[in-house]
Amino acid sequence: MNLKSLFVLICSMAFSSLTSVAQSIPEGSKPAVSNVRGAVYPRIFTDYRASFQIKSSKAKKVQLQFLSDPKPYDMTQAADSSWNVTTPPLVPGFHYYSIIIDGFSVNDPGSETYFGANKQMSGLEIPENNVDYYLINNVPHGSVQEHWYLSKITGHWRRSFVYTPPGYTAGAGKRYPVLYLQHGSGEDERGWTKQGHANFILDNRIAKGEAVPMIVVMDCGYAAVEGSTMPTDRLKGIKEFENVLINDIIPDIDASYNTMQDRAHRAMAGLSMGGGQTLYITLNHLDLFSQIGIFSGGGLKGFNYKTDYNGVFTHVASFNEKVKLLFFSAGTAEKPYHDATKEIHTQLDQAGIRNVFFESPQTDHEWLNWRRALNDFLPRLFK
Amino acid sequence: MNLKSLFVLICSMAFSSLTSVAQSIPEGSKPAVSNVRGAVYPRIFTDYRASFQIKSSKAKKVQLQFLSDPKPYDMTQAADSSWNVTTPPLVPGFHYYSIIIDGFSVNDPGSETYFGANKQMSGLEIPENNVDYYLINNVPHGSVQEHWYLSKITGHWRRSFVYTPPGYTAGAGKRYPVLYLQHGSGEDERGWTKQGHANFILDNRIAKGEAVPMIVVMDCGYAAVEGSTMPTDRLKGIKEFENVLINDIIPDIDASYNTMQDRAHRAMAGLSMGGGQTLYITLNHLDLFSQIGIFSGGGLKGFNYKTDYNGVFTHVASFNEKVKLLFFSAGTAEKPYHDATKEIHTQLDQAGIRNVFFESPQTDHEWLNWRRALNDFLPRLFK
Repeated sequence: MNLKSLFVLICSMAFSSLTSVAQSIPEGSKPAVSNVRGAVYPRIFTDYRASFQIKSSKAKKVQLQFLSDPKPYDMTQAADSSWNVTTPPLVPGFHYYSIIIDGFSVNDPGSETYFGANKQMSGLEIPENNVDYYLINNVPHGSVQEHWYLSKITGHWRRSFVYTPPGYTAGAGKRYPVLYLQHGSGEDERGWTKQGHANFILDNRIAKGEAVPMIVVMDCGYAAVEGSTMPTDRLKGIKEFENVLINDIIPDIDASYNTMQDRAHRAMAGLSMGGGQTLYITLNHLDLFSQIGIFSGGGLKGFNYKTDYNGVFTHVASFNEKVKLLFFSAGTAEKPYHDATKEIHTQLDQAGIRNVFFESPQTDHEWLNWRRALNDFLPRLFK
Repeated sequence: MNLKSLFVLICSMAFSSLTSVAQSIPEGSKPAVSNVRGAVYPRIFTDYRASFQIKSSKAKKVQLQFLSDPKPYDMTQAADSSWNVTTPPLVPGFHYYSIIIDGFSVNDPGSETYFGANKQMSGLEIPENNVDYYLINNVPHGSVQEHWYLSKITGHWRRSFVYTPPGYTAGAGKRYPVLYLQHGSGEDERGWTKQGHANFILDNRIAKGEAVPMIVVMDCGYAAVEGSTMPTDRLKGIKEFENVLINDIIPDIDASYNTMQDRAHRAMAGLSMGGGQTLYITLNHLDLFSQIGIFSGGGLKGFNYKTDYNGVFTHVASFNEKVKLLFFSAGTAEKPYHDATKEIHTQLDQAGIRNVFFESPQTDHEWLNWRRALNDFLPRLFK
């Protein structure tokens, strides 16, 4: 071993001080699919319990904290100085989490990172038993491409991820409808494929003939010229993205892909913040969109169909004629979103506005909610 | 504000305890391009110094540690309890780093994460002044696609990233040569685009007519059936990947993309571990490859052209006839790799084996090295 190799080795050791190690591995569990390659922890049991292990000799207190749960789990130190906890059964799906070491929130080095809460976070995937609609299956796969474009509005290079369905051929005669699909607050254009598995959901629905082959554009919902992340004025943030979507993204996608370019074949959907953006932007541009999906994102303030959105919902006949699909969803465990969405749905029903309300059993304001919502939404699109 | 919103707010606050904040921002600096959206720190100065800031009231000691530098920088606590350090001028390029808080290596929440050392790490990009060959420019862009395939060898779904050049049209008559391009130890199939900017380097070279439009396949160099990450036996790891490359990846890519399928139009290159894989696999399969690139990866043991690789380098005439390009590179600041590579180059020169040795000034065993190597390699390929 030469000096350089020795140095690299020492370096690797220094950098792996938090790495999970295999010690008295709980029986009946296996590494989470959300782990990095080779990480032994976190581990998932078939009954949805999860075990975590952090190697840390100097810490005085180590906790596990899920983003969706205000109460952290205390981890206990074993004789080998590793810190361990096994949770009770958790809701299946995808959970952002952190490890809190002596008061500091850090990533678990055993976990892949997922962009949420405006930073790269650890994530835990608990696969739903006997459910495979969001998993990669042995069916034809569409392609997910990084698509870069120079925004005329912001002056910055921006990136979207574009799903093209199996059999898509650039420049060929066949054209496809387009769904613009937006992430939530604190996330970005990577969320729908990485956390949401949108590409696999599409592959699976299309393979069964249950969804129309379509192009799906997943862009970043933050579009401030100065690059700021969280406009304090919510409406300002929506309008910034509206400007970029209408004037940059849609023209660029129509120029770059084999798209159908009429409103009948253009849809928009989004989750949480992206749902709010979707409702505002589509209702403001019914000349461009005919199909609308709002996943946990109708807003939490009191809804009034008579006055909200410039009273568009009072023009019942023309609205129902123009909007071919108005889809709302919420999880039963995200009570404020669920109740607010149900209120919108109920008022619109009473007003005679045709709309759908999909309820996801027992899911909170998390990605399993939105996988289910997308999976229910897709077969209704472009029909 | 309802209870849920309040909870989300509290949660966000709890999870942002490490978030960098803007306080007495150093003049003449700007946020690193490797930061997450909106992060104010780390910051880069035009003279290549970098400032870091970590918000942490409870820590007793905070340090900054680059993976390529054994000596950590101590950070000092300011009156507002933030921990700060400004480094001396650093070598431009991409550096993996960690923050060490009371002995624990953690990620900087201000940084995007980059897969290296078998985990998601913080990274610092220091752009080289007046250099744009690895930046996104206003030229036609190729497409980088996630490509999933079920490995017959391992039984697992695997993913590669595939670059197709501007104008590439699936299924059309035009066919392209293929470069298989491998990452280094502890990294994965994401490294060459995320850390390496390979797609932009290709775009820029192709736009200037300096590189032949080509397909580039970036796969994961770990291919154990059991999913282990680091075979203790180096050769075992190489052979595992050889098996998957030859029997899964190449046939699948040839079936899925418009490839030229003869050895004259198939190249392989790799960095560090990927360079070792490249040399072993290509020399073992000269029926499949005609062009070879070894970036900082010729191995550190003493080289003997007469006996190594089954004496293939002693068949000078046939080797020179078969191998159209044998390219080695190393940085002058990675002395063991540089010296070992230079030794190989010198012996091969003396033996009469046609080969190229590209030296990258002042770069260590890091990505700027390999960006430069790829940039120098590409114009020589498929000519």
